Amino acid sequence: MNTVDQMKLFMEPQSVALVGLTRETGFTSWNALEHLLRYGYEGKLYPINPAAEEILGVKCYPRVKDIPGEVDLAVILVPPASSIGLVRECTEKGIRAIIVVGQGLADGDDEGSRLQREIIRVANDGGARVLGPNTFGAGNAFRNFNSAFVPMDMHRIPIGVICQTGMFMSGLPDFPMVGKGIDLGNTGDIDFSDGLEYFEDDPEVKVILMYIEGINDGRRFLNVARRVAHKKPIIALKGGRSEGTAHVTRSHTGNLAGRDEVYAAAFKQCGVIQANGEEEFNDLSKAFINLPLMRGRDVGIITITGGGGILAADACYRHGLRLAELSPESIERMKAIAPEWQSFANPADIWPPSRIAGHPLGEVLHTAIDSMLADSNIDGLLVIMPGTTPTDVEADPPDAHMSLIGTLVEAFKLTQRYDKPAVLWCYGTDTAATVSLIEKSGRILYYPTMDRAANVLARLNERYQFLNCRDDG
Amino acid sequence: MNTVDQMKLFMEPQSVALVGLTRETGFTSWNALEHLLRYGYEGKLYPINPAAEEILGVKCYPRVKDIPGEVDLAVILVPPASSIGLVRECTEKGIRAIIVVGQGLADGDDEGSRLQREIIRVANDGGARVLGPNTFGAGNAFRNFNSAFVPMDMHRIPIGVICQTGMFMSGLPDFPMVGKGIDLGNTGDIDFSDGLEYFEDDPEVKVILMYIEGINDGRRFLNVARRVAHKKPIIALKGGRSEGTAHVTRSHTGNLAGRDEVYAAAFKQCGVIQANGEEEFNDLSKAFINLPLMRGRDVGIITITGGGGILAADACYRHGLRLAELSPESIERMKAIAPEWQSFANPADIWPPSRIAGHPLGEVLHTAIDSMLADSNIDGLLVIMPGTTPTDVEADPPDAHMSLIGTLVEAFKLTQRYDKPAVLWCYGTDTAATVSLIEKSGRILYYPTMDRAANVLARLNERYQFLNCRDDG
Repeated sequence: MNTVDQMKLFMEPQSVALVGLTRETGFTSWNALEHLLRYGYEGKLYPINPAAEEILGVKCYPRVKDIPGEVDLAVILVPPASSIGLVRECTEKGIRAIIVVGQGLADGDDEGSRLQREIIRVANDGGARVLGPNTFGAGNAFRNFNSAFVPMDMHRIPIGVICQTGMFMSGLPDFPMVGKGIDLGNTGDIDFSDGLEYFEDDPEVKVILMYIEGINDGRRFLNVARRVAHKKPIIALKGGRSEGTAHVTRSHTGNLAGRDEVYAAAFKQCGVIQANGEEEFNDLSKAFINLPLMRGRDVGIITITGGGGILAADACYRHGLRLAELSPESIERMKAIAPEWQSFANPADIWPPSRIAGHPLGEVLHTAIDSMLADSNIDGLLVIMPGTTPTDVEADPPDAHMSLIGTLVEAFKLTQRYDKPAVLWCYGTDTAATVSLIEKSGRILYYPTMDRAANVLARLNERYQFLNCRDDG
Repeated sequence: MNTVDQMKLFMEPQSVALVGLTRETGFTSWNALEHLLRYGYEGKLYPINPAAEEILGVKCYPRVKDIPGEVDLAVILVPPASSIGLVRECTEKGIRAIIVVGQGLADGDDEGSRLQREIIRVANDGGARVLGPNTFGAGNAFRNFNSAFVPMDMHRIPIGVICQTGMFMSGLPDFPMVGKGIDLGNTGDIDFSDGLEYFEDDPEVKVILMYIEGINDGRRFLNVARRVAHKKPIIALKGGRSEGTAHVTRSHTGNLAGRDEVYAAAFKQCGVIQANGEEEFNDLSKAFINLPLMRGRDVGIITITGGGGILAADACYRHGLRLAELSPESIERMKAIAPEWQSFANPADIWPPSRIAGHPLGEVLHTAIDSMLADSNIDGLLVIMPGTTPTDVEADPPDAHMSLIGTLVEAFKLTQRYDKPAVLWCYGTDTAATVSLIEKSGRILYYPTMDRAANVLARLNERYQFLNCRDDG
């Protein structure tokens, strides 16, 4: 069976046996069936529990061999010590994909490591592959399927995650990160390369995220990652990077973390983008899904606050970008509406043209966005706006303020016309409403710090460079 | 007049002349009086406008000299070219504090620079000091006072800001940053040292933030900053740090940014904490107001996800912290509730004791927090929890889930008992509710990324080291 067909048994099963399912229900019962029913999973479900007739209205079977039809996937929910016999029963039933949930194997002591090897051997000998052990297993929002024993948020977003911790199956603050997720757990058998090959031509996945503690087959990984990276952005976050943490991964997933420099060099060679923190999973996914790549390193900054423009420029340089030198045309268009004393340049401070020269702010912003995005010296845009919605200005009818916001949002629509990325940062104490209006109006994404906004532009350029340089592989 | 009394005229004026106040009202009229009335400012207000009898019900005067009583502060709202005569009228009236709002002075062209020098000279010769020009001026939530012509959120929080851009008067996302703010603008006269001396013994201010593009009197700054830093944490964000941006500050506030290394060395010498981005203003203010300092560099990590614990440890090492080696007592207490195979250490993964060994999660968390905070090997705590509130688990009554959250929140109350800082990071797609409950329950603060959580602990230790080392000054 080829890798993709094998992985489909894990990710898109038509029928699932839940081996050793509890009869308890409710939040702390960790009943995987309860969650699957809530997600609306439409495949066949076979709970295995010799002591139950049915669980949550679904007919139970005493043993795996009693299941009447074919089974794509078995999820072994019992403690590891009992797993080997059940794995053998699964292979005898012809099941070729097995998720082993239990902990305390290679993540535990030496006895656990031995037991894990034995589980994998029995499964492989019987023609099956194992996901885990020590895992939430597989999740696929597009099929309303998730094998995890904790409830998950399921969102059909085009992001595929391959990870060695359940945390990244659950999404991160303010971003439902996982459309499809593969928790490799201890990575006893199924490895990163299997996940990458599954996502490689998957039309439902546009960006691939990996959380890596250790990789089994480095050579295969290099080949597969390099091939897949030419088709889709791959973002990798490495755990156990520092001297003081490398050993800790041993007790988490039984993996030795390996030297950080080796991984960094390998990622670079393959075109895998290395994230430096978990927030980059969110930041870069959003960007690669919604924004065009950045063809060069020259940024145009539009700001309503001079200080913000300077700090944003500092952030750009920190990430290897530069302040673009504006074309004479851009300068001319902006100078036409600026006060005479303003030495109009980049960052473009749009406050004086409005406050001093008296042009409506929406018009000034429109001119700035249009001239900068049309400027061939500029590869991408960073915009700074106030986010506070001063709805409590009493003497002022609310619609006057909304009409100002409306003209600004109208100006942001211009970002849709150009094939250049644009990112936004807002100050003020309540930015959510403004941000949401602006993001909906144009092709521009908000980031919560200027550093993260600049980093996103740099990574959009890093990917452009990778795709447009000759590959030496 | 000493510096503090001088600064009080700007920050706590009993009477304010608004010179050149517009008769227009509403959002885009930038009418400072409108905002002051809304804030509930209780001092005397004297709008100066020869063409108006009254504005918003407040009696107007044609000229400054026509004001019947004494005036603490004048805010000059007219364009710069007309300012000199008005500044002279103010000094003739005996006004000793003048805010000059107008732009296009040292931030503009050479003519503007000349004009700025002239304004300052006239004011100083007449016994007055000038805040600005090119400024929002002064804000003081504790007196319902703010001279800015844009509406501000006013919150009585113990944070004093001294900045060279109005942006930092407005607060940043999710944090009402300014209790008292001084926008130096072009810093033509009033400088950072004046602001520092005002905040030095101010009981309403516990943390001082500075956004710096350039400082006039470096020698005085070094002396004042070092003295004040022994009393209150001072956090500085420097704008124009990179080669490509240092010149940009010239057109923003007329300041030359100076070499980054020089500033960094000066900050270090004075005990000023240098922020690397605007988000550190929020992160560190919250921390210094609410958490004890960290006496050493050894962190204890409590996590419900192994992967999260490893990434948090990586973040700690990145910021110069270390994973603490747990005391035998801590290990013993945790091993008593952990499954046999778990090699209990730091980071402490509390999931196996609950899920595998069957102890209630709240009890496990309680044991972990209590033993770690009591452990003399540990200087501070970093905790990772799931933030998602799965209220949509249908088969489960919501109160069962809330009861779990309740026991966790109960465990976090323990953080109040110990004189060690604790920080929190949460994963999941909807963390707000959980975070709010946890922060309210104990002395623990949430940060939106693990990197920021680790950075906060490192800075709490940096400050401890500064205060507890002999000063060489």
